[in-house]
Amino acid sequence: MKEFVEKTKSSRNIFKGKLLDVYVDEVLLPSGRTAVREYIKHPGAAVVIPYVGDGELIFVRQYRYPVREVTVELPAGKIDTGEDSIATVERELIEETGYRANRFVELLCFYPSVGYTNEILCVYWAQELSYIGERPDPDENIEVMKMSISEAVERIFAGDIKDSKTIIGVLIADRLLGDENLKRRFGIKL
Amino acid sequence: MKEFVEKTKSSRNIFKGKLLDVYVDEVLLPSGRTAVREYIKHPGAAVVIPYVGDGELIFVRQYRYPVREVTVELPAGKIDTGEDSIATVERELIEETGYRANRFVELLCFYPSVGYTNEILCVYWAQELSYIGERPDPDENIEVMKMSISEAVERIFAGDIKDSKTIIGVLIADRLLGDENLKRRFGIKL
Repeated sequence: MKEFVEKTKSSRNIFKGKLLDVYVDEVLLPSGRTAVREYIKHPGAAVVIPYVGDGELIFVRQYRYPVREVTVELPAGKIDTGEDSIATVERELIEETGYRANRFVELLCFYPSVGYTNEILCVYWAQELSYIGERPDPDENIEVMKMSISEAVERIFAGDIKDSKTIIGVLIADRLLGDENLKRRFGIKL
Repeated sequence: MKEFVEKTKSSRNIFKGKLLDVYVDEVLLPSGRTAVREYIKHPGAAVVIPYVGDGELIFVRQYRYPVREVTVELPAGKIDTGEDSIATVERELIEETGYRANRFVELLCFYPSVGYTNEILCVYWAQELSYIGERPDPDENIEVMKMSISEAVERIFAGDIKDSKTIIGVLIADRLLGDENLKRRFGIKL
């Protein structure tokens, strides 16, 4: 295997906002040349696949300013400082949808945009849900909806569900429900 | 449906690097309050699922500085100014892997990180491949590899393939190969 690692020569925090923490690093390439790497430091996030039974999941609709669009997404959120990612999904699920889950299973973690952020997003399966009432942020406009996994898969291929964590969550949920080995592997009983 | 749209009150370009173009906008919420939105403007990107036959795809391994890791990914790249996204995948496929494809089919587009960038990434199926020799960027260290879709799926669930566009591409490829309706819908004949 080739030598791949790029070594940090210098690192500058070019902008630190409320959300974005932007760095410009100078790196030493394996070739001996130098290059510039621009990226965002991110605390990590977690997304939840809330399974209500009968092949249905809970989704949220919300306006996403960067893309100027209302998107259909699985509930998710950034990890607060010191918080465990399972606590993040537990909290976000209640805040955004009003549902509490008795059981969470971590399925996998992924990098949404490996080219310019270190964000890692972990995907949780949630089941045994009960409605206890949402706790909406007054500045967040969120609409809760149930949808079958098969309809969500159809909406992915129709280009209507476009959020990466939601596409990944739905395709995994669809696979999981039809695959006894995968259920056993993750200790999921329905 | 609730009123969701957030209206731009002001927009500031806080940093413009070689890769990242960072904005801080003040927006008017539907509630009448104001809020700050930090995000990255992105030209868009495209990713390709290069199908070599026999259930195998071409992948690349490369070092990703933001996550300090060598990742396994489907070939992809940013859209150059004025370029069509099909031209992007055609170009990136040759540059990174040395393979030329005779046929490209757009499957869907997705938002990798809807919370802080307007990046949209379109996914192409590519087939009828022939090897014509790669054109590596001297500062990019890329290793080309073939892998079966079933092994790639296994590596996703093992937490070994973590790149969002690659997870989405592999799960879609896997579905596509087993679903005659989906093949017909996208006009794919193997």
